[in-house]
Amino acid sequence: MSAALPPFPKPQETDGPTELLQLRTGTDEDEPCLRADAARNRARLLEAAARLVAEHGAAGVTMEAVATAASVGKGTVFRRFGDRTGLLMALLDHSEKKFQAALLSGPPPLGPGAPPVERLRAFGCAMLRRSIDELELQLAAEPSAERRYTAAPRRFLRGHVALLLRQAVPDGDSELLSHTLMAYLDAALVHHLTEQCGVPPARLRAGWQDLVARVTRTEHPA
Amino acid sequence: MSAALPPFPKPQETDGPTELLQLRTGTDEDEPCLRADAARNRARLLEAAARLVAEHGAAGVTMEAVATAASVGKGTVFRRFGDRTGLLMALLDHSEKKFQAALLSGPPPLGPGAPPVERLRAFGCAMLRRSIDELELQLAAEPSAERRYTAAPRRFLRGHVALLLRQAVPDGDSELLSHTLMAYLDAALVHHLTEQCGVPPARLRAGWQDLVARVTRTEHPA
Repeated sequence: MSAALPPFPKPQETDGPTELLQLRTGTDEDEPCLRADAARNRARLLEAAARLVAEHGAAGVTMEAVATAASVGKGTVFRRFGDRTGLLMALLDHSEKKFQAALLSGPPPLGPGAPPVERLRAFGCAMLRRSIDELELQLAAEPSAERRYTAAPRRFLRGHVALLLRQAVPDGDSELLSHTLMAYLDAALVHHLTEQCGVPPARLRAGWQDLVARVTRTEHPA
Repeated sequence: MSAALPPFPKPQETDGPTELLQLRTGTDEDEPCLRADAARNRARLLEAAARLVAEHGAAGVTMEAVATAASVGKGTVFRRFGDRTGLLMALLDHSEKKFQAALLSGPPPLGPGAPPVERLRAFGCAMLRRSIDELELQLAAEPSAERRYTAAPRRFLRGHVALLLRQAVPDGDSELLSHTLMAYLDAALVHHLTEQCGVPPARLRAGWQDLVARVTRTEHPA
């Protein structure tokens, strides 16, 4: 099987999508007086856009479709996100923040309160689910080779894995091992395996459980 | 530490560097009557260029420098490789073929004749050495996310690792595990760790031995 990726509007600036994303985050944080109903409105638009991505892929997300799905005027979507690139970047940022919150303060085993190996297992399965749902968005926003490992969202997730590995594998090089575990969850690899090789998601999840067991020298879960 | 990558002349065609590379290979194979002295001359130019990359990085490879290093006229270098991009692509192709030959028919443990775990260990250390020596070339030739896992040189190397894993880990998913081992050796990751994080090559090699031991559930070598 081979699947062409849908076109994605790249930002015109020399800065990559991630810088744009951080810029956007910064802008929002600089607006403490953003009215509560505007914030709710923004969240509602992003949830509608996320549903469209899940149902139709990134190609299905247009300003018009989001406006219709959220029952607002098209002008509202343009005012909030500027253009379609702005909307897609805001969407990735929104998803990233929800996921980070789940890791930091959500219920176990994804959040705190479970043994580190169980948290690693849950982390990988959640990442694979995200990668499969948001594959096109993540691929389109992939930074260049020189910046791939320094982009902020990736640094946070890799640091989370390294933290769990320090607890689970005190005798290992948790920094290097964390890169290895993150590589299994890389969007470009997940795309290759699912879209180009036809590997079913269940096999990817089983492979993750197996990898965590080998890396931590533990037994497979029952 | 942070290192900017030197500029690299990208080919103008829509085909990526790897297609160019395959094209070049094909062209050479279509010239069985390439005279022996011309073939020797080409090999001598490539060896000179490889020395320049090792000593000065990809930025140090100019048509003039290669001509001087190989004691030939500049015209000879232009006639053989067309332009600097052609030279750099031929260089990567040359290095790839030498490495493939070492895996297929060189002395053990890189070549056949050693136990699979030992061959995996040797493979990773040789790949890390290559990555560090040719980092700029490999990064510059990195295919886009959609083609990264289907490019021919990568497919060959990944298949080699999967073959060794089938013997070393008969109970594992050798296809998925082979992607994980290859990811540790990825040029972009090696660049990040060595150039951006200051990780010394010896630590990368030790991390590879540790990873192979964990994945194959064997002990570290003495």
